[in-house]
Amino acid sequence: MNFTSDNVHGVDDAILDALRDVNTGTARAYGYDDWSAAAEARLRDVFECDLAAFLVVTGTAANSLALAACCPPYGAVVCHAEAHITTDECGAPELFSGGAKLMGVGGAACKLTPAAVARMLEQMGRGEHEQRPSVLSISQATELGTTYAPDEIAALAAVARDRRMHVHMDGARFANACARLGGSPADLTWKSGVDVLSFGATKNGALGVEAVLFFDRTLAGDFVYLRKRTGQLVSKGRFLAAQMLAYLDDDRWLRNARHANAMADRLAAAVRALPGGRVRLPLPVEANAVFAIVPAALHAHLQAAGARYLVWPGAGPGTDTVADGEVFIRLLTSFRTTLEDVDAFTAAASAGAARR
Amino acid sequence: MNFTSDNVHGVDDAILDALRDVNTGTARAYGYDDWSAAAEARLRDVFECDLAAFLVVTGTAANSLALAACCPPYGAVVCHAEAHITTDECGAPELFSGGAKLMGVGGAACKLTPAAVARMLEQMGRGEHEQRPSVLSISQATELGTTYAPDEIAALAAVARDRRMHVHMDGARFANACARLGGSPADLTWKSGVDVLSFGATKNGALGVEAVLFFDRTLAGDFVYLRKRTGQLVSKGRFLAAQMLAYLDDDRWLRNARHANAMADRLAAAVRALPGGRVRLPLPVEANAVFAIVPAALHAHLQAAGARYLVWPGAGPGTDTVADGEVFIRLLTSFRTTLEDVDAFTAAASAGAARR
Amino acid sequence: MNFTSDNVHGVDDAILDALRDVNTGTARAYGYDDWSAAAEARLRDVFECDLAAFLVVTGTAANSLALAACCPPYGAVVCHAEAHITTDECGAPELFSGGAKLMGVGGAACKLTPAAVARMLEQMGRGEHEQRPSVLSISQATELGTTYAPDEIAALAAVARDRRMHVHMDGARFANACARLGGSPADLTWKSGVDVLSFGATKNGALGVEAVLFFDRTLAGDFVYLRKRTGQLVSKGRFLAAQMLAYLDDDRWLRNARHANAMADRLAAAVRALPGGRVRLPLPVEANAVFAIVPAALHAHLQAAGARYLVWPGAGPGTDTVADGEVFIRLLTSFRTTLEDVDAFTAAASAGAARR
Amino acid sequence: MNFTSDNVHGVDDAILDALRDVNTGTARAYGYDDWSAAAEARLRDVFECDLAAFLVVTGTAANSLALAACCPPYGAVVCHAEAHITTDECGAPELFSGGAKLMGVGGAACKLTPAAVARMLEQMGRGEHEQRPSVLSISQATELGTTYAPDEIAALAAVARDRRMHVHMDGARFANACARLGGSPADLTWKSGVDVLSFGATKNGALGVEAVLFFDRTLAGDFVYLRKRTGQLVSKGRFLAAQMLAYLDDDRWLRNARHANAMADRLAAAVRALPGGRVRLPLPVEANAVFAIVPAALHAHLQAAGARYLVWPGAGPGTDTVADGEVFIRLLTSFRTTLEDVDAFTAAASAGAARR
Repeated sequence: MNFTSDNVHGVDDAILDALRDVNTGTARAYGYDDWSAAAEARLRDVFECDLAAFLVVTGTAANSLALAACCPPYGAVVCHAEAHITTDECGAPELFSGGAKLMGVGGAACKLTPAAVARMLEQMGRGEHEQRPSVLSISQATELGTTYAPDEIAALAAVARDRRMHVHMDGARFANACARLGGSPADLTWKSGVDVLSFGATKNGALGVEAVLFFDRTLAGDFVYLRKRTGQLVSKGRFLAAQMLAYLDDDRWLRNARHANAMADRLAAAVRALPGGRVRLPLPVEANAVFAIVPAALHAHLQAAGARYLVWPGAGPGTDTVADGEVFIRLLTSFRTTLEDVDAFTAAASAGAARR
Repeated sequence: MNFTSDNVHGVDDAILDALRDVNTGTARAYGYDDWSAAAEARLRDVFECDLAAFLVVTGTAANSLALAACCPPYGAVVCHAEAHITTDECGAPELFSGGAKLMGVGGAACKLTPAAVARMLEQMGRGEHEQRPSVLSISQATELGTTYAPDEIAALAAVARDRRMHVHMDGARFANACARLGGSPADLTWKSGVDVLSFGATKNGALGVEAVLFFDRTLAGDFVYLRKRTGQLVSKGRFLAAQMLAYLDDDRWLRNARHANAMADRLAAAVRALPGGRVRLPLPVEANAVFAIVPAALHAHLQAAGARYLVWPGAGPGTDTVADGEVFIRLLTSFRTTLEDVDAFTAAASAGAARR
Repeated sequence: MNFTSDNVHGVDDAILDALRDVNTGTARAYGYDDWSAAAEARLRDVFECDLAAFLVVTGTAANSLALAACCPPYGAVVCHAEAHITTDECGAPELFSGGAKLMGVGGAACKLTPAAVARMLEQMGRGEHEQRPSVLSISQATELGTTYAPDEIAALAAVARDRRMHVHMDGARFANACARLGGSPADLTWKSGVDVLSFGATKNGALGVEAVLFFDRTLAGDFVYLRKRTGQLVSKGRFLAAQMLAYLDDDRWLRNARHANAMADRLAAAVRALPGGRVRLPLPVEANAVFAIVPAALHAHLQAAGARYLVWPGAGPGTDTVADGEVFIRLLTSFRTTLEDVDAFTAAASAGAARR
Repeated sequence: MNFTSDNVHGVDDAILDALRDVNTGTARAYGYDDWSAAAEARLRDVFECDLAAFLVVTGTAANSLALAACCPPYGAVVCHAEAHITTDECGAPELFSGGAKLMGVGGAACKLTPAAVARMLEQMGRGEHEQRPSVLSISQATELGTTYAPDEIAALAAVARDRRMHVHMDGARFANACARLGGSPADLTWKSGVDVLSFGATKNGALGVEAVLFFDRTLAGDFVYLRKRTGQLVSKGRFLAAQMLAYLDDDRWLRNARHANAMADRLAAAVRALPGGRVRLPLPVEANAVFAIVPAALHAHLQAAGARYLVWPGAGPGTDTVADGEVFIRLLTSFRTTLEDVDAFTAAASAGAARR
């Protein structure tokens, strides 16, 4: 009953197997091996685009390097005020870019709107006294488990384009969004105006690999230097490539995400059906996260029953506020969450709700 | 016959097995799991010291973070002019430390001497016009496969201590040095004055893990922030810990290193025995590297025969120069180098030497 | 009738004279001259404190260096969301500190409250995933021309102290605040818990000099290195010192500020007295700034009459919003603003207001 | 008798006068005033080029910003091993560029040769493991008071051009070199392949102003952001412009430099004529510096007589070494060095030399 995060689970066995499969003979180091080339080719197929792909080890690095490639040291990255890149990376985007400033925009359900972004940009532009808006960063799925449809992305990208800004997508949970939205990876990215994607695999089953994808190869420029100087060029590169290849094989990435999403749906349905009507789900379940506002007593009961999840900071997602005597919680499912886990949670919650 | 580097080989099977062994159940993310705690405890045992250990993914990161923890942005790191940290990290130490300057000192066989370091330090100290000497960094083994005996380390550390500098050791190939020198890990590090060690595992059999070890825990300070902001905090930390535990189990790290060293010895003996006397080994073989100055014709023959190794830049290690018609080469062995590899190389070299 | 900023005026003649007075003979370069020592001694007298003083050339540098001295690269600086350091320095604090993140807190009249700061701090503290709150920065006077009384500063400093944060004061217009509040410089700074002050002189009559004052000398640490590596160590240091000495001589700094404040008062009184009641002053005039919400027609009239001032971004200071057909303007007075300037503005405004 | 540096003297009176002349009325702040525009226009005339000019306050900033504009964070700047930018800026070029590495090349008399630069560049180019050579930086005059003739500059620039590197000139003492060489400023810079010049004024009579000149305007790009974020955008910009205008008026910059050079010549002649033949001038006097190797006894005598100058670090300029019992000294003259100063030094030296 551990719904703390999708990274508390381990690694997809198929991906571990892939490590063993490539562990034979010698290979050129530092990503100049055949598997790395194959991984890039496979990503081109999946995204139907002559993209440039670079594998790195952590999501922090993927996002920070993607931004560093698009944003000058005196530039600004416009993002949601609660975006992971500004709240949870301990300044890595700033470090890797040499000083880019993250400008947070508010918005319900952790989503940016074209109007809110435009309003922020209108206030900027006084020349060198402030940093120059250079990148718009969108999280797909967002930190509150919501997603952007292609037309929403396109509308945001259009605002950015008007200011000659690049568009970055933080896709740590891109698979979950893609599985949910049903569109093609291309539709959700470059066809909607995204220039560079941090394509996550770790949260969805890999050991530790993320790809930075430049749909416009000219943006990649000297990215290999950036990757090296930030300590993200691994010597035994074939083992990153093997993870990515296994992740994409037979749509494993989508299958894993669909499973996690389905578990989230089941969890949400169970929570919604709790007796007493005291539990609210303030957000749509559009990826693998279920956010709920629960009575403190139920929360205590669940904890005692062994359920593990995060108490989310803040007073709610804007549309629905957390009252005294309530707790705002996040339940996250993963490729490995089991029906048993979900049902055990449901049982505990039902028992707790009934006790009141 | 691939002697290009120790990282062209894959991963020790026992270490891959360890990944599978820990791939069960859920675990706290970001290194707060039990395996990570166990790895730190094991490192304390191995080094007989109440050290603080932090696992990271690459050697670049390990060195750069270790230096960042000891050197202020306005500080200088004194190291050998050919040290990996100054020639091969694309500026990562400078980036992670926020600006530390690497001051290269010359010295035969890629080794620092107390006199040469002292001379450099005497020239520094004009106050704020130059960066303040803050760290002395020693490579063990060096980039030319040589090592420092404990008394050599202690003598260097004494020079540093006089200037209130910290002492860092780049131990990407610490296992090879340790296996060769025969001393205890403690003798080669903190007992000889080393404050922080980049303890490498990747080149010697791991998939990708290095430990930054602070023998003086107070130096570690807020290291967790440094590790996070540089993108080196992995979410599924147990898989780093599992590698490190397997690496240390049953002295695997030393056994692997001894094998690599023995293969280097065998290679060196074969090269020395080549007929014609035209091949020189300008450096002692003190770790897993064999450097040789070979006639260009022999080099061409070896290449044609399929032998792979690096042509080393520069005109020799100082004590012996490369003449016209000669090539300076590096042969590196690893935990997986086989007798067959070595003997095939020997046969090819003998044939090539005989042809002249 | 130029009320655009206090820096559109030139230099106090007495300060220019001082440059000539020291332009004789030779002097040690880089601030190691007698005048620089005298300036530090004088600042100690003025602030009744054994402080460490460092002269720099710009306010951007003074603030950014003061923060760099108190905040680690992985630290956060809590400040008002509209503080100059976060809106108008193009990332200099981030650059000089090596990555500190500025966390903006809202608050009416550009003022921080202990409650708002505490609320922000409560949300922080999840460890290395976010930057560690390290400094609280207070503007005195604020960007909206308001000030903090000593007890307000002390209350804010207490919140910071609880979290072991340092307290910085951006005193670009410290003289105006000090002249208005009437307290001693010591009361407004270290006696109320301020650790480091950017003590401005340029806006109040100097050519270009600001002092970074460390009331706790141990915080100054290696500040000379920071000043040098950021290009703020001037070779002919006596000319910075001469400005500062002349600025402090005979309370020139306070007399200049009192004049500017008086001109602001006169301006405010005139604006308040305009017929028609259509002009609002949404903020108290506590330094040398007058903010007014004026009808667009009056604004047009004033512009046509040659009045120069800034149209302030945003929709008002929070307590009073700008309606359609209104303009939010800032009038800034300086040591050199004349009665004639103010009266000419008043006349133009009266004529404009009467026309409606 | 102070020959310590050219910055121990104060400011040219004509330049101080110019400050007073512009101290009237109001002017747009931050360099958007008419004087700043006039200064740029005047620099275009002097250099016969449609250049972009930016005024800053210190030489450290001028060099560091010029390099930051031409060198990516992962780039390398090739310069002489004793160049001021690498020995005396406390890492400012690294900070402002976000990480550029300074690669020192040896060479007699502090001068780079095309062969030495080419040799360094041949050793670089292993891809992302090392920083990419991006800029060649030449000091004119050098730190040892030597100069480059236009054809020498052109030959160096050609080597840089072959590697698609930019060419920077550190012209802290450009006036002295220009006055000595006799060529036009254009010949010594862009006509010989220089892309960006740090054009010094401070050492040659200004209070504190240097110009960064981009002969290729496209290189200037977003330089205004770089200048702001490094704290070098002064609010009262007209006072920088006034200095530069006065510096260029009636060739004051060249007249000042010619005077300093003539004083250096007179000093050198006197030193050469000292009896006993024990004093050596190991370097040609090509700007305003005289370097001499003198017996320790003479050095002691001169010190006792009140002569002030620097003892230069190191064992000599390569061509001539400093023996035991000798001291390597630097005498620097300036726009304000008087005949009396020189003759007093000569007399003291003669007396000292005769005593032996």
